[in-house]
Amino acid sequence: MTQTRTNATFAPPVMEARRWLEGVVFPPDRPLINVSQAAPVDPPPAGMRDEMARLVQEDPGTHLYGPVLGLPDLRAELASQFSTSYGGKIGAQNVAITAGCNQAFAATIAALTGEGDEVLLPIPWYFNHKMWLDMAGVRAVPLPCGADMLPDPDHAARLITPRTRAIVLVTPNNPCGVEYPADLVAGFATLARKHGLRLIVDETYRDFHSRSDAPHTLFTDPDWSETVVQLYSFSKSYRLTGHRTGAMIAHPALLAEVEKFLDTVSICAPQLGQRAALWGMRNLGQWLAGERAEILDRRAAIEEGMPRLAERGWQLMGVGAYFAYFHHPFDIASDALAQRLVAEAGVLALPGTMFMPEGNADGASQMRIAFANVDRAGITQLYDRLAGFQP
Amino acid sequence: MTQTRTNATFAPPVMEARRWLEGVVFPPDRPLINVSQAAPVDPPPAGMRDEMARLVQEDPGTHLYGPVLGLPDLRAELASQFSTSYGGKIGAQNVAITAGCNQAFAATIAALTGEGDEVLLPIPWYFNHKMWLDMAGVRAVPLPCGADMLPDPDHAARLITPRTRAIVLVTPNNPCGVEYPADLVAGFATLARKHGLRLIVDETYRDFHSRSDAPHTLFTDPDWSETVVQLYSFSKSYRLTGHRTGAMIAHPALLAEVEKFLDTVSICAPQLGQRAALWGMRNLGQWLAGERAEILDRRAAIEEGMPRLAERGWQLMGVGAYFAYFHHPFDIASDALAQRLVAEAGVLALPGTMFMPEGNADGASQMRIAFANVDRAGITQLYDRLAGFQP
Repeated sequence: MTQTRTNATFAPPVMEARRWLEGVVFPPDRPLINVSQAAPVDPPPAGMRDEMARLVQEDPGTHLYGPVLGLPDLRAELASQFSTSYGGKIGAQNVAITAGCNQAFAATIAALTGEGDEVLLPIPWYFNHKMWLDMAGVRAVPLPCGADMLPDPDHAARLITPRTRAIVLVTPNNPCGVEYPADLVAGFATLARKHGLRLIVDETYRDFHSRSDAPHTLFTDPDWSETVVQLYSFSKSYRLTGHRTGAMIAHPALLAEVEKFLDTVSICAPQLGQRAALWGMRNLGQWLAGERAEILDRRAAIEEGMPRLAERGWQLMGVGAYFAYFHHPFDIASDALAQRLVAEAGVLALPGTMFMPEGNADGASQMRIAFANVDRAGITQLYDRLAGFQP
Repeated sequence: MTQTRTNATFAPPVMEARRWLEGVVFPPDRPLINVSQAAPVDPPPAGMRDEMARLVQEDPGTHLYGPVLGLPDLRAELASQFSTSYGGKIGAQNVAITAGCNQAFAATIAALTGEGDEVLLPIPWYFNHKMWLDMAGVRAVPLPCGADMLPDPDHAARLITPRTRAIVLVTPNNPCGVEYPADLVAGFATLARKHGLRLIVDETYRDFHSRSDAPHTLFTDPDWSETVVQLYSFSKSYRLTGHRTGAMIAHPALLAEVEKFLDTVSICAPQLGQRAALWGMRNLGQWLAGERAEILDRRAAIEEGMPRLAERGWQLMGVGAYFAYFHHPFDIASDALAQRLVAEAGVLALPGTMFMPEGNADGASQMRIAFANVDRAGITQLYDRLAGFQP
């Protein structure tokens, strides 16, 4: 078989998981609890939908191509709000708007790496990061986390080679949920700077961080743009997943490279999503605070319910933002367990194997629960089902 | 400098051209005639805007992730309508919806090629194709066209090597406008099949073809999917450029590979654009016929006005769909000419150099005029200005 970009990687895990549902009938009194994906299931609030309907009718620009790097007002708004919340200096020229945060990652990698280069990824990793690196011809170098699900800069230092171009952190983490301490993030920035690497910090879930002040201090360094690339998504915060709107914050020279990629792969990010995100940033601060409070309450429910699960041998390895990451007590590999949980417990969750390099044994004992769409009552039910499952 | 994907290619030409406008003041009685880009400048018709406003308010799915390969109803509708218009058998499983036609091209290349492979591109080429091949580590092998702006399968045959994976045709062509005859397209399919290559046919402008019957017979071959990949865009036909909605038609096994790329780079195409495209296919047939008639009339105006330009030494090398491609009479390279035309004639058009490999001399004497947004009166003015220009 010809070696192609796509056959260098695996099929999308979320879709594989969806196939496990095929042919399974869930009784009406025990419907499926789907904790497989981290995505809102409700549309944006009414005010934003009204604004979108108005834009479609009254703003012709909504239907036309726009600048490759994004709507100038949205770039400026994001720069301004992030400057305030991180206590740093971020200008509109540091911001690019992308068709979702996955695209921001892809564009960043295209701008930083070539065939045969290496990028350090803490494991468990976000599988789309691994997939893109595979397709880009870049070796994803696994950086094992400790028992606290945190990566260690000293360990990372030992993995750096002349081909290393970047280190990727996801905080709050997907799949582990953990929020990386500010000191740890700073330690990685120091390491990256020392070796002339970029530190890519994917903060898709930042709006659901348990700290209300800045989760890290990277942007307080006046020279941050020499090292740091931040990725962000409007999808979760404003329920805009279907509109494909993300962002990245970086040095303007890097964005000039990113621009080539974005122009060629999508010309511009969708215009309605960009306008909706701008309206959201300007008008939904209070609403988003409420969303965050609800997610933090669900996180608390995950933690509060643990004693019952712990009695059955489950361990909570990490929790935060949309995710809880578990060590399961069974002598079954997690990918087999996940499929049995569908049929026998009415629960769809992703196995740790999906977030681990092939052959890594740890993933077999781990499960990710994306709890964001499940309320307190639902979390109680979820725990009932997990506690009741006996292989 | 580190070799990266993006620094293997050049900056987006459309943006470079836009920079030529900076600081230039156009008098109110002689505003700029912008014939640089092939994109609608008006929003979709009222009925479609109404439907979009309704979807935003009433269809929650508009705001959520959807299937990676696209909305099932849109895939089925496109399959059905294209089966009819091409007289072939295309099923929904042959269709993927992408975030624009550029993304369809990128995904196709990712699924067909690896580092160091080769793809044949007729020149003048569409620069985003060349840019993506550069970033993918694929050598774009230039296939020169004849004086009729048509590529020759026999010439192509001589350029095929063991690394060749595909041949790309754009018809109606960008930048040359020419419609490739059905026989020629079939000849390329035969060549591709013989060598085990794919024939990628980019038909972004098919809805503005001068033939009202099928422009080629590729899909009448029951085994078309072994060889043919068709690319399509909803952007021009339904004025949806800002919504990023394109499509590709191919073998389901190839689409399974494409799915990996789409999942990783964008998760799904924007949902509103997909729903709007579906509504358009079902309701705007008559309207689109009117749009096509208008474009064909503008094309006629381009041809009818030629004697006056020909007197000044201009030659029309190709015309069709949105584009006219000219040989200019001046002893000035086209990239310098294009910049002078902005300041001295109030015309922004792209130089042939932007569509040619570096160092190819032919581009210096060529100019592309994207006339789709200029009505008959505007074309008269455009010709006045071009005829009046003396270096």
